[in-house]
Amino acid sequence: MKKIKLLALSGSLRTCSYNTATIEALKLIAASSGIEIVIGNIKDLPLFNPDREDDHIPAVIELKSNVGDSSGLVIASPEYAHGISGSMKNALDWLVSGAEFPHKPIMLINASPRASHALAALKEVITTMSGNIIEGALVSIPLLGSGLDRDGILSNPEISNALKAALNNFCSEIQALKPDKPVQSTS
Amino acid sequence: MKKIKLLALSGSLRTCSYNTATIEALKLIAASSGIEIVIGNIKDLPLFNPDREDDHIPAVIELKSNVGDSSGLVIASPEYAHGISGSMKNALDWLVSGAEFPHKPIMLINASPRASHALAALKEVITTMSGNIIEGALVSIPLLGSGLDRDGILSNPEISNALKAALNNFCSEIQALKPDKPVQSTS
Repeated sequence: MKKIKLLALSGSLRTCSYNTATIEALKLIAASSGIEIVIGNIKDLPLFNPDREDDHIPAVIELKSNVGDSSGLVIASPEYAHGISGSMKNALDWLVSGAEFPHKPIMLINASPRASHALAALKEVITTMSGNIIEGALVSIPLLGSGLDRDGILSNPEISNALKAALNNFCSEIQALKPDKPVQSTS
Repeated sequence: MKKIKLLALSGSLRTCSYNTATIEALKLIAASSGIEIVIGNIKDLPLFNPDREDDHIPAVIELKSNVGDSSGLVIASPEYAHGISGSMKNALDWLVSGAEFPHKPIMLINASPRASHALAALKEVITTMSGNIIEGALVSIPLLGSGLDRDGILSNPEISNALKAALNNFCSEIQALKPDKPVQSTS
């Protein structure tokens, strides 16, 4: 049985980011079910420049390679001024022209349920890039202002169960999309 | 009579960017009417990180200073995958917490009239940041695919007149907002 491998990206570069803490927690939740999550790096990407798409920039090559190698992509991104964080949009801009992103199953995590503008903008961009947003894997968790770090998320039953359920749905959908590549259950 | 000084930002880092060509053309149009336009630099900004807001990063200090010194801000930004370019959003992210941006009059230039998603997203972000979008200065010009550079824009009567009219409206509004600081007419 082939194991599933996911790539997770946080749209915040802040050290104590709730979004980063969430994907770190999700990585541990997944590992306990035999699902591998690779945490990707967007902080070393230069600002997107269409003139530089063929420049073999290491951080761009790494991102594209990680997306291409993954069965699905987990995105946890903050809302800044009612928009997608520039860092996350910049990462997506680098992926627009490649073959790695289209049809990729996407799980969205929203760490601030009251923040709906960036989530809507992110959905529009991902759909335009032919990403496959798995609605059953979309999870909103009230982390903003909670003070919870990775371990706090893991020890909060409500939040960790919501993440586990969304991850389960995500992996089931990926399995259904690729019947030739069954994955281990996360339950 | 005090001259008006505007800051113009292009959201594209491409050398042959239509947006950059447009603000370069606008700078010359403005100069002929005694209006100064400074073309700002967003390409040297690091990716936004809230942890680094007090780090005295030269490119950030320069951008904030230029915004603060300007009577108004001209933004010409492309649409990438139905979203604001990551580079432009990144620049705005650096301006969110400062005192320079709120209430700043904003002129928006859309070089691709069929691209409405990024423009709508940009309006939402700017409004959330308390920027003052001057609707009468919003100008859509069909540049995408035209092959026009700065000089081509200047020698195209329809496009250069549209830019001049929008700039006139922008400066009139700025003048009306600051009656103690009259500006030279651009007509």
